[in-house]
Amino acid sequence: MPLYLIGLGLGDLKDITVRGFELVRESDFVFLEIYTSLLSSVTREEMEKFFQNKIIEADRDLVESNSDEILEKAKNHKVSFLVVGDPFSATTHMDLYLRAKKEGIEVTVVHNSSILTAVGSCGLQLYNFGQTVSIPFFTPTWRPDSFYDKIVANSNLGFHTLCLLDIKVREQSVENLLKGNKIYEPPRFMSINQAIEQLLEIEEYKKTGVCSPDSFAVGLARVGSNSQIIKFAKLSLLKSFDFGKELHSLIIVGKTHPVEDEALEFFKLVDLDEKLDEKLDEKSNENQN
Amino acid sequence: MPLYLIGLGLGDLKDITVRGFELVRESDFVFLEIYTSLLSSVTREEMEKFFQNKIIEADRDLVESNSDEILEKAKNHKVSFLVVGDPFSATTHMDLYLRAKKEGIEVTVVHNSSILTAVGSCGLQLYNFGQTVSIPFFTPTWRPDSFYDKIVANSNLGFHTLCLLDIKVREQSVENLLKGNKIYEPPRFMSINQAIEQLLEIEEYKKTGVCSPDSFAVGLARVGSNSQIIKFAKLSLLKSFDFGKELHSLIIVGKTHPVEDEALEFFKLVDLDEKLDEKLDEKSNENQN
Repeated sequence: MPLYLIGLGLGDLKDITVRGFELVRESDFVFLEIYTSLLSSVTREEMEKFFQNKIIEADRDLVESNSDEILEKAKNHKVSFLVVGDPFSATTHMDLYLRAKKEGIEVTVVHNSSILTAVGSCGLQLYNFGQTVSIPFFTPTWRPDSFYDKIVANSNLGFHTLCLLDIKVREQSVENLLKGNKIYEPPRFMSINQAIEQLLEIEEYKKTGVCSPDSFAVGLARVGSNSQIIKFAKLSLLKSFDFGKELHSLIIVGKTHPVEDEALEFFKLVDLDEKLDEKLDEKSNENQN
Repeated sequence: MPLYLIGLGLGDLKDITVRGFELVRESDFVFLEIYTSLLSSVTREEMEKFFQNKIIEADRDLVESNSDEILEKAKNHKVSFLVVGDPFSATTHMDLYLRAKKEGIEVTVVHNSSILTAVGSCGLQLYNFGQTVSIPFFTPTWRPDSFYDKIVANSNLGFHTLCLLDIKVREQSVENLLKGNKIYEPPRFMSINQAIEQLLEIEEYKKTGVCSPDSFAVGLARVGSNSQIIKFAKLSLLKSFDFGKELHSLIIVGKTHPVEDEALEFFKLVDLDEKLDEKLDEKSNENQN
């Protein structure tokens, strides 16, 4: 019997493909991977109604340590394993794929859009991106900066950098972890604002100028959904813009081509202070004449 | 009225999303972009039956020079513009998007999988890819090699390189072009074999060793479809493997991580000559003992 590895895409339930939809409907068991991402606007109940099937939430523990449970079922039943985005993109489930194949289970992969390509929506060409980086939440004692160095390396080659921002789903507090309590903290999603703050903090001592307040960047929220927001501006301006709910991503812009400039112009965030200064200048010039 | 920019994904008709499917069904006009890619296994008739709608094929001329025709229609009707893969990935239709927006047309984008992410199917992590390159068909008088230099630059940083292989759809012969005959050559798709031949030709005089017969690569054919083939081997071995019908892509492998090695091992193409040599060695050792 088969295992279906199915990407859900980025927006809502209807972003699954027609093939994926049919496979989920006819499955005996449907697992939903919930620890690396989520469809933020959809509840499990809505999902069960849409697919007319029971949804089993699969946390990291189930997928990484107890995946035998999933594979055992797939030997005698049709099993769907649902992943937000694409099954092999931002988070890869190649491990599950290989283990299933090695146990002789037939695996069908249903691809879908991923944040790695959907960011093409801002008009920057995907050919001009260097390595993608992930920005983790800083803690009082853990403030890594290797992602900054990768942005600098990309920038030196003229490339843009896509920064994926940290997601904490089903994390336990140290106390609950030590006590073995299966109690989870509420999910947390890094905002564009926080990512910029962390980048500027590193810029303070690395001083390359690549992530300075005057560096250009694109902030993207809820890409692919109806409430998508894309804004292009300097980091100093983006830092205080309210992009709303999760999920957020950030692009540090490298060398741009004229076609890219045209798109960025369209997504430009107007700096009201700057506009006001211009207006005041005009006024004072008028008064002088 | 709205313009729907809809990605079709990579395999067959059912790889469109549920949302995309609904939008195409309810559209007054449906354009299909046919000059940068195609769903190789699907005819227009099958597509019209699936969507219960007439499909208008849009060539480069219509989209780039006469896009007013599309935009005019979108002012008073629901218009779908279908693109294989994702609307903003390997080929971007940002130009059409921006022109529509500037004319006050509401635009809805329906993302889908793209070859840029679906190549994650081979187990190489998309984080470890450098810049994507395109390999064009060599002609007797035009043999560019800038893509080779980009592969070398990626390789020096330890990155993998995805090579997109040339597609010639709706091309005119020089004679027909000069005479203004709208007669088109049959579509051509670069095979993995031909791409490797071109790379080895450049390696002959550039001699960096990055694309030598002993360099490791992954050949991918028809990614995302039921007949997908993925093979990992040295270029010398992949060069003579028959991957079958279009579309093909090639990855020059950079520095690998252990999890990537495990996947590549799974997709390894067995070298029969090597196996035979091993067997003969075993035999001759047995005879000597």
